[in-house]
Amino acid sequence: MVIPKEFFNPKSVAIVGASKDKTKPGHLLLYSLLKAKFKGKIYPVNPKADKILGLKVYKNLEVIPSKVSIVIVATPAYTIPEILESCGRKNIGCCIITTSGFSESGTEEGKKLETEILNIARRNNVRLIGPNCMGIYNPKVGMAFFPWQKPEPGPVGFISQSGSIASMFCTISMEKGVRFSKVISSGNELDLNCADFLEYFGEDPETKIILAYIEGVKDGRRFLDVAKKISKEKPLIIWKAGLTSSGSKAASSHTGSLTGLKHVWDAVVKQTGIISVDGIEELLDLTLMFMCYPSAKTEKVAIVGGPGGIVVSAADACDFSNLTLAKLEDETMSKLKKILPPAGTSVLNPVDLGFGSVEWKTYNQTLKFLDEDPNVDVIMAIAGAPTFLGKSFFKFDEFAKGLAKTSKTLKKPLIAVMPEISQTQKPLKTLIKAGIPTYPTPIRAAKTLAKTLNYQKFKEKF
Amino acid sequence: MVIPKEFFNPKSVAIVGASKDKTKPGHLLLYSLLKAKFKGKIYPVNPKADKILGLKVYKNLEVIPSKVSIVIVATPAYTIPEILESCGRKNIGCCIITTSGFSESGTEEGKKLETEILNIARRNNVRLIGPNCMGIYNPKVGMAFFPWQKPEPGPVGFISQSGSIASMFCTISMEKGVRFSKVISSGNELDLNCADFLEYFGEDPETKIILAYIEGVKDGRRFLDVAKKISKEKPLIIWKAGLTSSGSKAASSHTGSLTGLKHVWDAVVKQTGIISVDGIEELLDLTLMFMCYPSAKTEKVAIVGGPGGIVVSAADACDFSNLTLAKLEDETMSKLKKILPPAGTSVLNPVDLGFGSVEWKTYNQTLKFLDEDPNVDVIMAIAGAPTFLGKSFFKFDEFAKGLAKTSKTLKKPLIAVMPEISQTQKPLKTLIKAGIPTYPTPIRAAKTLAKTLNYQKFKEKF
Repeated sequence: MVIPKEFFNPKSVAIVGASKDKTKPGHLLLYSLLKAKFKGKIYPVNPKADKILGLKVYKNLEVIPSKVSIVIVATPAYTIPEILESCGRKNIGCCIITTSGFSESGTEEGKKLETEILNIARRNNVRLIGPNCMGIYNPKVGMAFFPWQKPEPGPVGFISQSGSIASMFCTISMEKGVRFSKVISSGNELDLNCADFLEYFGEDPETKIILAYIEGVKDGRRFLDVAKKISKEKPLIIWKAGLTSSGSKAASSHTGSLTGLKHVWDAVVKQTGIISVDGIEELLDLTLMFMCYPSAKTEKVAIVGGPGGIVVSAADACDFSNLTLAKLEDETMSKLKKILPPAGTSVLNPVDLGFGSVEWKTYNQTLKFLDEDPNVDVIMAIAGAPTFLGKSFFKFDEFAKGLAKTSKTLKKPLIAVMPEISQTQKPLKTLIKAGIPTYPTPIRAAKTLAKTLNYQKFKEKF
Repeated sequence: MVIPKEFFNPKSVAIVGASKDKTKPGHLLLYSLLKAKFKGKIYPVNPKADKILGLKVYKNLEVIPSKVSIVIVATPAYTIPEILESCGRKNIGCCIITTSGFSESGTEEGKKLETEILNIARRNNVRLIGPNCMGIYNPKVGMAFFPWQKPEPGPVGFISQSGSIASMFCTISMEKGVRFSKVISSGNELDLNCADFLEYFGEDPETKIILAYIEGVKDGRRFLDVAKKISKEKPLIIWKAGLTSSGSKAASSHTGSLTGLKHVWDAVVKQTGIISVDGIEELLDLTLMFMCYPSAKTEKVAIVGGPGGIVVSAADACDFSNLTLAKLEDETMSKLKKILPPAGTSVLNPVDLGFGSVEWKTYNQTLKFLDEDPNVDVIMAIAGAPTFLGKSFFKFDEFAKGLAKTSKTLKKPLIAVMPEISQTQKPLKTLIKAGIPTYPTPIRAAKTLAKTLNYQKFKEKF
């Protein structure tokens, strides 16, 4: 392991460039640490201030009276060399450089300065995260880089070369109930890089699912070896940007990354068992699935819902994703026939409850029959149309509460499909809280199941 | 034109099976007509009631004292033959049969009864919509089949073989600002079928965009001819279900449809200029685009946003959809250089505003520069990450209000990308109200632009 353990178990953090000025990053970073209730000591560093946010301020790193685990730097690029020399003298081994204006700027000065700070860091035994990054969100110890990052830990480790993607994904996914072990915004990856963080997450017992947003890979060979090794143990879900010529050019001016071509990436994915996703929605969809069902079998799918069109389209979606629809046992179909009206329903898979979909009792009974069928691996429960369906309106709230309760009694994994409209906002929260992965369309549910299944098949080989 | 015009310009509607019982479809249909403020006369028909919802009830169709434009039937299947004979004697030419239990039930009786009612209808010169359908939502005349279908007309005509898909799509899309000229839930299409409705929408001056959810096509030849003809004039966006073996089986028990194979459908799409979509999200995405920009040029895309990752991923998304990124003129880049800081930004396309994305003044100025660039056809404006970005938090509300105002002054079409999270609920409404097509991810925005462009190229051939 190349990463000093202080990065993730810091006893103290110094913020160089801490500021009273609310518009400065050095204010945000300090404020975020306080909001996240950092469990160690915090040392703001600024030669021009005495107190910031109630904390004593130090003129420089070397006058801090105790040991410092991590330095977070938020001062201009030209100040960094001297700060790193200071780290060396103070015997600090971990530094996060948030400052931008290095190789990603495309200028000769930027590149030169980047090389210079790497040399200084090496000479002083300082390991770097960044530059041009946001650093670490580590809820267990109370580290955060945005004030809304709550100190609530979870099983997901996320590495993002982009600070804005880290921010965007944290916001979207935390609203859906995702919680993180650690998030690392790694920026230009001048020193420590994606492969190092992957290796760390691979060994970190708190991280069960590993996500990454990668623009460019610096050391391809090592990345491949690490990815191969850890994806046998934990799902490794990667959103690789810059796979196209336009994306690649944009990535170069963003994090100074040398990106790869799509066919190279496809070969990497095949060799390593990486679960490759194309954007933020798919990243979220797969995270939800693995959070709820870390190693469930999802080969043969049973679909239930109704009436009509919405289960037809779910069957289509499964076929398009090359999923197998479970062939129900005769016994299951007989039991279903007894509880469903003959008209407007189907006891074949997909099970169309017809107008019965609005009656929770019928829906619930069907779930239990499907759960007992040995041919069924996973149940996809579709919410009915948001309307009157012959007898009464579909009650999303009753559906969500019912699924939440029943899911606890089922042996098979249960996933839900429910449109995202104003009347489903509350029911969606109920489902998320109950740990049921919920998707707005059957297409997204089926794609997610298919990728999950591929990963299971990959793992079975070992 | 084979459809009697009374279906869409009714002076009076009779509801056979109107009911006081709120759990009955015959109650819902009457209540929906009243809620939609139907502009003609309403005649509830029920031998066992005197008054329902304040309206005088008639024992049967023939005792109604005036002419009846449309009969809507909500009584059991076995009652339909006599009702159709009654229509004949009363000289009523338009009948909507909502009842299910016909060919879709898969039973011999169901199929036999279906053939019988078609024969009776033919003999009596009655044209049918359904059976197994919800009928017509026609906001201009105040017809509706759900009480929440507001009498607010718009440019979109929608044909759906599935009542639940009609309901689901109306709910989702109306929340996003879509308004309909007419929605036809056509069910089993025993008599009038999809091709007839398409032909009607093709000639209907109120319908500018035509959508369809189709499970099976009854008369392939005629469908092809009609689709070919109208898609030269109006975008024809079709979600074809049952293209896979599982979907096909499910569709057969839903609307008794004989579905087609995927390669046949692909050939149809190629010949006709149909815009084929794979589900409800894509149907909505394209509808929004054509509602806002019926015939805009969208060949060369300019992307603006920032910082970093979110514009990199937008460039990727455009490339994956085979869109061309506009090559900005030198003059545009010079103007951009003057307003953007040198570090963390890019004046190439995608334009990365870096931390400048949080300053509306900078964002707005950039939009104007891109609008003036002759190489740019369409502008994709990306909302920043939902966080502090160096100087201040990204203000979604300011972004939405700004775009709404600026879009009115731009010559080029503007589309927005903004994540769907709780803090963007209000800004999303602002954008929708301003007629700016807004997508939750760059992937969906790019896919929509690409399909729009394909359609434009198809139209240019004529």
